[in-house]
Amino acid sequence: MYPKSIQKLIDLFSKFPTVGPRTAARFVFYLLKLSKEEIGNLISAVAKLKENVKLCKLCFQPFEPSTSSGQEGEFCEICKNPARDKSLLCIVEKESDLVSIEKIKKYNGLYFVLGGTVSTLRKKDVEKLRLDELKERAKKPEIKEIIIAINPTTEGEATTLYLERLLKPLGKKITRLGRGLPIGAELEYADEETLSSALESRR
Amino acid sequence: MYPKSIQKLIDLFSKFPTVGPRTAARFVFYLLKLSKEEIGNLISAVAKLKENVKLCKLCFQPFEPSTSSGQEGEFCEICKNPARDKSLLCIVEKESDLVSIEKIKKYNGLYFVLGGTVSTLRKKDVEKLRLDELKERAKKPEIKEIIIAINPTTEGEATTLYLERLLKPLGKKITRLGRGLPIGAELEYADEETLSSALESRR
Amino acid sequence: MYPKSIQKLIDLFSKFPTVGPRTAARFVFYLLKLSKEEIGNLISAVAKLKENVKLCKLCFQPFEPSTSSGQEGEFCEICKNPARDKSLLCIVEKESDLVSIEKIKKYNGLYFVLGGTVSTLRKKDVEKLRLDELKERAKKPEIKEIIIAINPTTEGEATTLYLERLLKPLGKKITRLGRGLPIGAELEYADEETLSSALESRR
Amino acid sequence: MYPKSIQKLIDLFSKFPTVGPRTAARFVFYLLKLSKEEIGNLISAVAKLKENVKLCKLCFQPFEPSTSSGQEGEFCEICKNPARDKSLLCIVEKESDLVSIEKIKKYNGLYFVLGGTVSTLRKKDVEKLRLDELKERAKKPEIKEIIIAINPTTEGEATTLYLERLLKPLGKKITRLGRGLPIGAELEYADEETLSSALESRR
Repeated sequence: MYPKSIQKLIDLFSKFPTVGPRTAARFVFYLLKLSKEEIGNLISAVAKLKENVKLCKLCFQPFEPSTSSGQEGEFCEICKNPARDKSLLCIVEKESDLVSIEKIKKYNGLYFVLGGTVSTLRKKDVEKLRLDELKERAKKPEIKEIIIAINPTTEGEATTLYLERLLKPLGKKITRLGRGLPIGAELEYADEETLSSALESRR
Repeated sequence: MYPKSIQKLIDLFSKFPTVGPRTAARFVFYLLKLSKEEIGNLISAVAKLKENVKLCKLCFQPFEPSTSSGQEGEFCEICKNPARDKSLLCIVEKESDLVSIEKIKKYNGLYFVLGGTVSTLRKKDVEKLRLDELKERAKKPEIKEIIIAINPTTEGEATTLYLERLLKPLGKKITRLGRGLPIGAELEYADEETLSSALESRR
Repeated sequence: MYPKSIQKLIDLFSKFPTVGPRTAARFVFYLLKLSKEEIGNLISAVAKLKENVKLCKLCFQPFEPSTSSGQEGEFCEICKNPARDKSLLCIVEKESDLVSIEKIKKYNGLYFVLGGTVSTLRKKDVEKLRLDELKERAKKPEIKEIIIAINPTTEGEATTLYLERLLKPLGKKITRLGRGLPIGAELEYADEETLSSALESRR
Repeated sequence: MYPKSIQKLIDLFSKFPTVGPRTAARFVFYLLKLSKEEIGNLISAVAKLKENVKLCKLCFQPFEPSTSSGQEGEFCEICKNPARDKSLLCIVEKESDLVSIEKIKKYNGLYFVLGGTVSTLRKKDVEKLRLDELKERAKKPEIKEIIIAINPTTEGEATTLYLERLLKPLGKKITRLGRGLPIGAELEYADEETLSSALESRR
C-alpha cells in the first residue's frame, strides 16, 4: 500500500520496542515533515550513539567516556566514583532500572546490569544474560552484599531464583527488594503474597 | 421516563456503592424477570440481615451470634477465640479489609474496625470514626503492639498519621504495614517512595 | 468467611448483572449501615415492583397501569398514545434500548421488546425470545415498516438476520439502523465494514 | 542522568508522535543493542526517505516516482490511474486516512490530503491547511462530488464546517461520511446524535 521507501522504514520502526505498524507509519509521516537539517540531526545522533557510547567494563551500563581520559575510559561515572560504597552490588535487569534506582538517591553502592530476564532456565535463554561476568564481579572480596533488584514479575522471580542459586556458593549476603503495598494500594485488591509481606515487614 | 415504581427502585439502587443510574436500571430489569419466590428470598435475606447480624462489642465487625449463646453473644468468633494472640491489635478501615487479612492466614492477633478514613482532620469528619472505642480498646494492658493496617492512599495516610498521634500517649509499639513492590510490579514504573521502601526493607 | 446471613445476601447480590462477590459484599456492608426505616423502604420498593409493574400486552415493555383504568390497563403509555405513528414498529432487544431511543425524541412510532438476543439459532436459545408475539404483532395491517434496532454486535447481528428471515414472508419493509462512524471516531481506527457503510451512506 | 549522546537521542525521539521520554529511552537502548550493519540500514532508510519520496502535485500524498519516468513523475499512482473515477474527490486529513479508505476497496475516486485539521478558524491555524491548493483542485470541471472524509471529532467537525463554507460557492455536490452505529456498538451507550443518525439512515 505504501511506497517502497516508506514501507521499508515502517518495517524498521516496527521492530522498535512498543511500536506497531500503525505507529511506525506515523513516525515516517512525521519524518517526511521534518526539514533536511532536522533529518540530518537525527541521523547524526543515531550514528554517533555507537561511536560515543561504551558499555562500562564493570557494571555494563552504557556511558560516554570523557575524551581526555586514558585507562579510566573503561569505567562509568558510578564505578569510578570513590564515594560509592564498594561493599554493595545491586543487580538490575536493564539500564532504565539502574536509572530508576539512582533517581531515588537512597542507594550509594554499585550496580551490575544483567541484560535481561529469563522465563525458562533453558541454556539458550540463560546464555543471553551476563552470567560469567556477574560471577566474576560478585566474587570480588570487597563486595559484602548482593542485592537482586529484579522486577517481581513471573519472569523476574524465575530469574531471581536462578541468580540466588548461582551466587549462593560465594557465601555472601544475598538480598531481594522488599515486598509490600505500594503507595495508593488498597488492601482489598492486594494479592495474598503482597499482603503477607506487608504484614511481616511492618514497622 | 421510567414508570414510578421502577424509578423509585432505580433511585434506591443508585445509592448503593459503585452503582450509577444505568446499572441501577439493569438491577430493576433483572428483578422484574425473577419469580415471586426469588423476590421473596431476596426480601427475606435483606430483612433478616439487620435482625441476625450484630456488631461485635470489641472489634466492631459484623457477626451472627449463635442462637443458644448467652452473654457470649456480644463478641465475634475472632474475639472469642482463645487461640488468638491478644497482644496484637490490628486497626482496619472496614470489614472487607479484615476479611482480606484473615484470608492470608498469617495474622493471629485481634482486630479493630475503625469504620472509615478521613481526608481532613475536621471534627465533623473525625467524629465518624470509632475513636473513643479505639482508645478504650487500645488501652487494655494485654495489647502490646498496635498495627495500623489502613490503605496507603492519600486519605489512608492522613488517617494513619492521625491515629499515630492519638495512640502515641499510650506508650505502646505502633507499626504500619510495610511498603514495597507488589507482585507483578516493575521498578521502572514504581513511585520513588515505594522503591525507596523496597530498597530499605530488602532481605 | 462471612457470617451466614451476610454470605447468603452476598450470594443473592452476586447474581445481579455486573455484580461480583466483592461488590456484593460492599452492598451488604452498605445495607448494614442503613437505618431500619431505610431498609424498610428498600424492601417495600422491591416488593411493590412486581405488584405494580406489568408488561404491556403490545410492546412488552414494563409499565405501571394507572389505578383507575379499566381495559386500558393492558397497554403502556406509548402504545396507548394516539399521536404515535402506528405504521412504524421498532424491535429492540431490551427495555433500556427502548428508553435510549425515546430519549433522542426523533422516533414517533411503536416498539416491540424482543427480550434478548441469540448467539446461535438453536431451538433452546431462540425460544427465549418473544417470536410468536412478534409475528402476531408484525402481521397487523397498519404496520408498514419494521425497524430492527438490535445492537450491531456479533450476537445482535445473528439475531437481526434471524428476524429478517422470520419476518420476510410478511412482505413488509424491513430496515436496520444505519451503520457509520459515531461521533468522536477516527477513520484510522474504524473497522472496514463501518468505514464502507460510512462511505456508502454519505450525504 | 543519561550520558550526553544518549540524552540527545532521547530528546529527538521524544518529539516523535506518541513517544514520551521513557519510550524514547527504550528506543535508544534498543539501538545500542543493534549491530553496526543494522544501524547503517536504519540510517540509510531515513536518509533515502526524503530523497526518494515526493508529494503528489495533485493529491499531496507521498509517493515514490519510478526512476524512469519523465513528467509523469509529478503524480502518484492513484492520480495517474486512468481507471479511477475523476468525478469524485475525497478530502482526507492525513495520509493514513487515505490508506484506510483505500483498504476497504470500495472507493474508486480521487483524493486530496488536507494536511491537518483546525480547532479554531484563526488565520494562523487555517494557514497550515492546503486550502489554496484545494480550491484550485476542487474547481476542476470534471469533479462532480466532493466527499469530506474528515474524522467526526470536535476538531474534525469544525474543519468540515469550514470546508463546506469554503467550497459551497463552487456549486458542486458536497457530502460527508455517514454517521451511525459502528460494528460492536450498543444502543445503550451510543450518544444521541449517533443514534439519531443511525435511525435516520436506516435501510
